[in-house]
Amino acid sequence: MSDSAKQELTLVTEKNGIRRIQLNNPKKHHALSLDLLKSLKSAIEKESDGKPPRVIVICSSGKVFSAGHDLRELTDATGHDYHKDIFDACTKVMQLIQDTEVPVIAEVNGLATAAGCQLVASCDVVIASESSRFATPGVNVGLFCSTPAVALARAVPRKLAMQMLLTGEAITAQEALKHGLVSKVVPHEELETETTRIAEKISSSSRSVMALGKACFYKQIQKSRDEAYSYASDAMLRNLNYDDCQEGINAFVDKRQPVWKD
Amino acid sequence: MSDSAKQELTLVTEKNGIRRIQLNNPKKHHALSLDLLKSLKSAIEKESDGKPPRVIVICSSGKVFSAGHDLRELTDATGHDYHKDIFDACTKVMQLIQDTEVPVIAEVNGLATAAGCQLVASCDVVIASESSRFATPGVNVGLFCSTPAVALARAVPRKLAMQMLLTGEAITAQEALKHGLVSKVVPHEELETETTRIAEKISSSSRSVMALGKACFYKQIQKSRDEAYSYASDAMLRNLNYDDCQEGINAFVDKRQPVWKD
Amino acid sequence: MSDSAKQELTLVTEKNGIRRIQLNNPKKHHALSLDLLKSLKSAIEKESDGKPPRVIVICSSGKVFSAGHDLRELTDATGHDYHKDIFDACTKVMQLIQDTEVPVIAEVNGLATAAGCQLVASCDVVIASESSRFATPGVNVGLFCSTPAVALARAVPRKLAMQMLLTGEAITAQEALKHGLVSKVVPHEELETETTRIAEKISSSSRSVMALGKACFYKQIQKSRDEAYSYASDAMLRNLNYDDCQEGINAFVDKRQPVWKD
Repeated sequence: MSDSAKQELTLVTEKNGIRRIQLNNPKKHHALSLDLLKSLKSAIEKESDGKPPRVIVICSSGKVFSAGHDLRELTDATGHDYHKDIFDACTKVMQLIQDTEVPVIAEVNGLATAAGCQLVASCDVVIASESSRFATPGVNVGLFCSTPAVALARAVPRKLAMQMLLTGEAITAQEALKHGLVSKVVPHEELETETTRIAEKISSSSRSVMALGKACFYKQIQKSRDEAYSYASDAMLRNLNYDDCQEGINAFVDKRQPVWKD
Repeated sequence: MSDSAKQELTLVTEKNGIRRIQLNNPKKHHALSLDLLKSLKSAIEKESDGKPPRVIVICSSGKVFSAGHDLRELTDATGHDYHKDIFDACTKVMQLIQDTEVPVIAEVNGLATAAGCQLVASCDVVIASESSRFATPGVNVGLFCSTPAVALARAVPRKLAMQMLLTGEAITAQEALKHGLVSKVVPHEELETETTRIAEKISSSSRSVMALGKACFYKQIQKSRDEAYSYASDAMLRNLNYDDCQEGINAFVDKRQPVWKD
Repeated sequence: MSDSAKQELTLVTEKNGIRRIQLNNPKKHHALSLDLLKSLKSAIEKESDGKPPRVIVICSSGKVFSAGHDLRELTDATGHDYHKDIFDACTKVMQLIQDTEVPVIAEVNGLATAAGCQLVASCDVVIASESSRFATPGVNVGLFCSTPAVALARAVPRKLAMQMLLTGEAITAQEALKHGLVSKVVPHEELETETTRIAEKISSSSRSVMALGKACFYKQIQKSRDEAYSYASDAMLRNLNYDDCQEGINAFVDKRQPVWKD
């Protein structure tokens, strides 16, 4: 059942610290098969010259961003253990996207469904073209999008999440923007340009400062307000000890551009 | 003080698995009196031919969807124990709407205030007419909408919730949509048609799959991300064992319509 | 380093129970220096004639609402203990705004950045002019806005919060409204009028009822749904015992204006 032998399921390019990971199984609408999930995990984790990238962009090609799980892998024929491997692998990738210290941008054109929608909802920032759409249509095949709902419900209001989950109907890019699933919507022809502009802005900051800040964000958001403040205040004090922070503050005071070490 | 002897406080009709529950105390602006709350609870819970419905629609008639608690029941004259019965009954109905395995849609036309707004915010999906409005005006009578705030604050951003709670002023249907209290807004003349369309879409899915998914949604949303994924992944594996799920996946692979057992 | 000797860092006026606190360090773009934070804390806490105000408005003047921390206070020269004092003072003010029993409105014109944006996100209600903007640009100086993120992430969807935090780019008033950071946007020339109108509406309610409701809101929002309902139901029962509540309900039943004791 492995299709990884024949082709690369993700295409990775890297330039100036910006790593673009393109989902690459167009015949299967970039379905998140077990092999593609493993390929995506490696593509996120691998280092170049002993270092992680400064920012990661996850993109796709064609009219479907990703169709979610490969349903052929979820029949009785493949069996419970194989199904468990798939959900474990999927959950790990979604968690990794938030737990990696590198900011991850989803560049979405086309339709993102089920675990494909979950992938979008798991990225830090989402830039979408006007024609992109988002759905969690598992009910149509008798498999409720319960794991996609974990990411979706933490990104959009509950009434919208439940409408999507219960009806399986897609929302438009503008609706996704209105309700917070997407950070920004641009015309299709500007999609890569705008994503790259934002990726360059992010990559122009200190890598270690970004890593500290991203990690703190996802930690504090699960705490009570007072515990969150205690945790984040401590992060601020640690941040002040970074060379790049003192350089940044001094550059600001001196009205010059900072020069990052990292 | 009981008004249930004279009239049915909810009117229930059921067709093709879609149960419509109409609040029915127009003289009191469909106030959520203790009797109406009990009537609503029964209307949600009762089975037809030994089965729950496939979907529930809660609707109302006239210019007020529901005015919230019947203030005449909350004077000193009725006493603490009676007041406690009311809040207990109200909380149980709001929890039941989310805890029942049947998806519940609010079809809102007119003004929903206080516990009436809480009722809307507690439903899974909310379809509202353009002229509907929403308010938590308890401060106007010296009774802060503290219990409505539980549902409201879990549906909309805090700045909006607090503006509504502190000022008592109503928001429009479009504002409610913008901020997530409402899933969809349509012209008044299309309200029932659109609600029915969505109810039919929901009722066309497998009942047991829907039940599993809805229960998982409200469970996982209160957990940390990692615990939520663990819980939801397990739900996916259980879901795969449902006959209707294997039927759905096989129908998809075979490019035919699924035939649900449930 | 103290600048408090020379000028008042907050200007406080009070009329009809509405206290206006104006940040007042225009040369430093109303930076939240340690001295200004202390001044702001006092301005929020102080009583007039033995009583707190009925409502507080935090405002500013000029093109910058507040530029956040005074970076000159965060260099190596000032040292770890001083930095810790600043973050402790800042966190205490942000918590105080939510923990004080008095409703607090932010009236925002101009640019609110970093801890200035956190200050806005911490207020109960936010009224902003059309030209106001909001940013968390700490990454530009190597100091990730980790503490501002605590307030920001509890006010807006995560994708927007992360885009702001990772890029440092500002969002407009309309974007802030769309995503819940702001309760209402008005033209600049109507800003003070609209804020005052809302402040007067809030101040026309019973002070003790408002205090009970606000406290309950921030308590229940951190609890699970069922614990929140239990807590809020109890608050409702306590609220019913307030003289102003019985007065309010009786006035409603009698179709007359209530006369509050408090």
